Amino acid sequence: MSHSIAIIGASGYTGAELIRLLATHPAFEIAALAANSKAGQPLAAVFPHLRHLDLPDLVTWEEIDFDGIDLCFCALPHKTSQEVISKLPRTVKIVDLSADFRLRDPVAYEAWYGNPHAAPEMQDEAVYGLTEFYRDRIRAARLVAGTGCNAATGQYILRPLIAGGLIDLDEIILDLQCGVSGAGRSLKENLLHAELSEGTNAYAVGGTHRHLGEFDQEFSALAGRPVQIQFTPHLGPFNRGILATAYVQGEAKAIHAALAETYAAEPFVQVLPMGETPSTHHVRGSNFCHLGVVADRRAGRAIVVAALDNLTKGSSGQALQNANLMLGLDETAGLMLAPCFP
Amino acid sequence: MSHSIAIIGASGYTGAELIRLLATHPAFEIAALAANSKAGQPLAAVFPHLRHLDLPDLVTWEEIDFDGIDLCFCALPHKTSQEVISKLPRTVKIVDLSADFRLRDPVAYEAWYGNPHAAPEMQDEAVYGLTEFYRDRIRAARLVAGTGCNAATGQYILRPLIAGGLIDLDEIILDLQCGVSGAGRSLKENLLHAELSEGTNAYAVGGTHRHLGEFDQEFSALAGRPVQIQFTPHLGPFNRGILATAYVQGEAKAIHAALAETYAAEPFVQVLPMGETPSTHHVRGSNFCHLGVVADRRAGRAIVVAALDNLTKGSSGQALQNANLMLGLDETAGLMLAPCFP
Amino acid sequence: MSHSIAIIGASGYTGAELIRLLATHPAFEIAALAANSKAGQPLAAVFPHLRHLDLPDLVTWEEIDFDGIDLCFCALPHKTSQEVISKLPRTVKIVDLSADFRLRDPVAYEAWYGNPHAAPEMQDEAVYGLTEFYRDRIRAARLVAGTGCNAATGQYILRPLIAGGLIDLDEIILDLQCGVSGAGRSLKENLLHAELSEGTNAYAVGGTHRHLGEFDQEFSALAGRPVQIQFTPHLGPFNRGILATAYVQGEAKAIHAALAETYAAEPFVQVLPMGETPSTHHVRGSNFCHLGVVADRRAGRAIVVAALDNLTKGSSGQALQNANLMLGLDETAGLMLAPCFP
Amino acid sequence: MSHSIAIIGASGYTGAELIRLLATHPAFEIAALAANSKAGQPLAAVFPHLRHLDLPDLVTWEEIDFDGIDLCFCALPHKTSQEVISKLPRTVKIVDLSADFRLRDPVAYEAWYGNPHAAPEMQDEAVYGLTEFYRDRIRAARLVAGTGCNAATGQYILRPLIAGGLIDLDEIILDLQCGVSGAGRSLKENLLHAELSEGTNAYAVGGTHRHLGEFDQEFSALAGRPVQIQFTPHLGPFNRGILATAYVQGEAKAIHAALAETYAAEPFVQVLPMGETPSTHHVRGSNFCHLGVVADRRAGRAIVVAALDNLTKGSSGQALQNANLMLGLDETAGLMLAPCFP
Repeated sequence: MSHSIAIIGASGYTGAELIRLLATHPAFEIAALAANSKAGQPLAAVFPHLRHLDLPDLVTWEEIDFDGIDLCFCALPHKTSQEVISKLPRTVKIVDLSADFRLRDPVAYEAWYGNPHAAPEMQDEAVYGLTEFYRDRIRAARLVAGTGCNAATGQYILRPLIAGGLIDLDEIILDLQCGVSGAGRSLKENLLHAELSEGTNAYAVGGTHRHLGEFDQEFSALAGRPVQIQFTPHLGPFNRGILATAYVQGEAKAIHAALAETYAAEPFVQVLPMGETPSTHHVRGSNFCHLGVVADRRAGRAIVVAALDNLTKGSSGQALQNANLMLGLDETAGLMLAPCFP
Repeated sequence: MSHSIAIIGASGYTGAELIRLLATHPAFEIAALAANSKAGQPLAAVFPHLRHLDLPDLVTWEEIDFDGIDLCFCALPHKTSQEVISKLPRTVKIVDLSADFRLRDPVAYEAWYGNPHAAPEMQDEAVYGLTEFYRDRIRAARLVAGTGCNAATGQYILRPLIAGGLIDLDEIILDLQCGVSGAGRSLKENLLHAELSEGTNAYAVGGTHRHLGEFDQEFSALAGRPVQIQFTPHLGPFNRGILATAYVQGEAKAIHAALAETYAAEPFVQVLPMGETPSTHHVRGSNFCHLGVVADRRAGRAIVVAALDNLTKGSSGQALQNANLMLGLDETAGLMLAPCFP
Repeated sequence: MSHSIAIIGASGYTGAELIRLLATHPAFEIAALAANSKAGQPLAAVFPHLRHLDLPDLVTWEEIDFDGIDLCFCALPHKTSQEVISKLPRTVKIVDLSADFRLRDPVAYEAWYGNPHAAPEMQDEAVYGLTEFYRDRIRAARLVAGTGCNAATGQYILRPLIAGGLIDLDEIILDLQCGVSGAGRSLKENLLHAELSEGTNAYAVGGTHRHLGEFDQEFSALAGRPVQIQFTPHLGPFNRGILATAYVQGEAKAIHAALAETYAAEPFVQVLPMGETPSTHHVRGSNFCHLGVVADRRAGRAIVVAALDNLTKGSSGQALQNANLMLGLDETAGLMLAPCFP
Repeated sequence: MSHSIAIIGASGYTGAELIRLLATHPAFEIAALAANSKAGQPLAAVFPHLRHLDLPDLVTWEEIDFDGIDLCFCALPHKTSQEVISKLPRTVKIVDLSADFRLRDPVAYEAWYGNPHAAPEMQDEAVYGLTEFYRDRIRAARLVAGTGCNAATGQYILRPLIAGGLIDLDEIILDLQCGVSGAGRSLKENLLHAELSEGTNAYAVGGTHRHLGEFDQEFSALAGRPVQIQFTPHLGPFNRGILATAYVQGEAKAIHAALAETYAAEPFVQVLPMGETPSTHHVRGSNFCHLGVVADRRAGRAIVVAALDNLTKGSSGQALQNANLMLGLDETAGLMLAPCFP
């Protein structure tokens, strides 16, 4: 049986990635694609790589007829997203890929995003979309908030360690490299090939990256006390992929065991043998997350490295995984694509 | 119903690409993976991106039990391939990805490859694997010879023009850029990232590239007279993709019409609207080939550009497309993956 | 003795390249840097890689005091350039890097650029800046028009062949790959890293690229009859470099001899031994142009390949070479930097 | 007055970088180039980008006539280097770019490198080549040991902080990304473009990277007690550049002040304004090191980021800076090349 799907925000990279994944999904059918700035155009004009698909032309989201739509992916910029989503019929299930419903606390939202939330009652309703840890609530949810891509990566490393009481909560450092597509299809000088290829730099240094709002919320809830990690993202000269290197104080073997146990039955999160670390090359274009643990030469310290594809497991793949759950399907439907290497 | 598959030469890039595609194929099951230099290792040691698959460890090809194997992909280097294939049981269907059975004429083979052919009787038997043009013979074949990746790209452009008598046969120039994976996983100085990224160069200039053997064979047969094109490949700083730019003397509109008609019903070859040209970005990781035609400012001359992924449509995707035909399946099974952009 | 230099258009890539080269020039001192959209900013805010230089802040060009300025480089967009240059004091020598004074014929200018020329009398005055072929006139010039980067590359190949009557003038094809910086620091979607890395595409196909105006002008003048070449540029995923592959009908040995003789005494143009072809990797960041000739397998046809750095030899290096001549200096002053490999 | 220079190990990347820098050096003349595996070849066969230079062909190091040679750069692999250097005449000054004389303690050397040192008496003699901190001893030295490229980068950040007692010595984390050329011109699968572009991974995780030997030696000496930092290098898909991100516990303002004061008069080390961080793009191809300091949101913690070019400031540029000092020249001679951006 097929479910009818709409995508709002289809002209960005996460929108394109959703369509790529849905192209071979066994039970979803795309009924409407909205992108207000490109309404009226065929999808092939915006994303020529999708020209083989027989899909409806882009429309404005206001033009979508939601009768018969089972689920809507919303891949809009934050702030716009809450405005649009609050106007959608409540009969439609929604997976939001923006930042708008990730933080449950309106005060925290305003502190990190700079504007008061326009739909605070929906913040309460929204379920945080980190599938492996919110699976049951996602199954029952009407509105799921996709996580930040960096936030997902860090949590795959740190949640089991914090929950298990395995590490010093005051000494957590997360150093991360993110590929360019994480910044979206925006026309910024620093995203030009000539400025970005063949080098790297840090950004949002010192604790200003907005995904820290998610880390604070989730880790503090897990620990039952405030937890503030240190987090430095870097912009790498590659299109897809996040590599996160976490420095923690705890026993490496116990850490490895906790990760292995937590993810033993997970279809998408794989823990490498002790002492091995992953590479973003090996998850590119897929919904997999690879985790590795190494003991430091200094006793009681460990390094944990995670790799995933920011557009897939970090965003659109996660969104689809959640949508599968929300519609009662096998969670892996359409998501078992192998990574694209080389 | 599932078919049982073996892959010989599983530790190279075309082997990996076959496994990637088979990972989501509905009717093929991998029964054996051979790579003599890495026999005994788990696949994940050689290709960590495939670690999520539950596959047999690598063995030598001599260790494979071919009872129950329906079809074997052979992704070995040329010369080795003919030696191995001539020893395989004749009950097994074979798709060879090497150059060994592309040329039907033993004299031509020796001229281009420098050694006498070790299995000339099988050269006769082998069917040339350019699916769209040899479909019926492939369906009935026991041994199919996958084409060169550059050779496939050039033929998608030129076969309909030659067959239709639309261009001057003595003035055909094919200028081409190929991604790095086309050179395989070989340890050569010029394939190092430090030598290859951020620049480009021509190679095999002047008519020495071995894929010219295929062009000569196929185009001369089509034209009923000897045809020798000019062909210059370039090595580009990207992993996947071939962009071929053909300069021909003929009417652009007639050329566009011939291409559009030839490929109208083809699932994987798409002809862009007149005046548009394709990009390798938009076929990456997929089995699609995009074609575009532009009239030159000089009357009676046209430029035709083709883009495909050398590892997929140019090699392993083509091989799978042929295997589907040989086993009576839908030709597109496992091959409708959308391109991976960005 | 030091000469005082101004640069107008200092916030673009060719402006930055001029400053990079002038940083170690023995006899030039930068007195003023103009960039109207960034006036008031220190150079390091616009180009952090130049922060070690003790240079004046950016101003508007109208603010420059031209008293005491010996020579002004003008690196503005076309059309703007002619408007600004026509207002500069005639006591200042000018090297223009835009397209505005490359075409001597106002009709041709309007045909290629779409607007009537605002300073047609200066079109007459301007000397075409292809140093090796206009050296004497450049020495005496007040206004020199830098060539297009693709136009320079093609002319290094073709001028000696046309002048020597060595090739069929009606069968010249120039296929070319250009690095991203050739498109400037402009915010366009197709120049984003995510859209451009890991692939390639043709553009301005069919004879519409504006540098054809230069080819037509120069080659027709050389030949004494109209010459129209075919020309297809491609956009490659690298920042610096042009690789041009020319297909000509003539004797390869005679062609090689003509190139070797023409450039025997040239400090920056190097002809490789017969049968070898160059790579952009080996000229990156330098003012050198490498040329190679190969005979095709078809008698009477040759392939000639040229490599240079579009920002250096193709633009700012050429401009500096011309400025050296205009001020009576050694032509190579400040330009002998070795290529930056790897 | 010109000094006569030999380079042993001229066929690797650091050898090529030395030649690139010496090409425009005002007072050094290359008298001999040795590369035993490529002896007899012209330099242009090994490094086509240097073909414009009029240099002697490659010889074996045993063939070099050291009479009249003032200084020899030795760019050999470690272990080979100590064997060769111990046989060179003591009249020649030597700058060694290998790891062989960086560690003063033979026990430490053997622990990190796995073999007993073949010339322990020369370990004593050798001066550690971090110019800014060993300048006076380098001026007087006969043998200078170039530092590890990562080791140099980390020390530019950490030496002033340790010397000034500004940070907790037990909580120092150095996370680093290094470009591919840092691994040299070696034929390894993981250095192929197809394996390395478009992604990243950590390596030598957990305190096993040999440059830790240098950190331990230098930081412990500075602190007057054992100091062991945590250090994780990553391999980035770019050819040149190191970006090091240090996490330290101390006051950011005091840290910034200490760095600014330490490097105030240094020609090559530049401290950015408080709160700004550097990029490897902006030091590429140059001898500059950029440093930036940011306070973390958590009080008493700071992030310090350093960027330099591993082949220049991290290796061959440093070597030349030291050679200038050893021969009584201006330390900056030949080294003021501006970075090559874009």
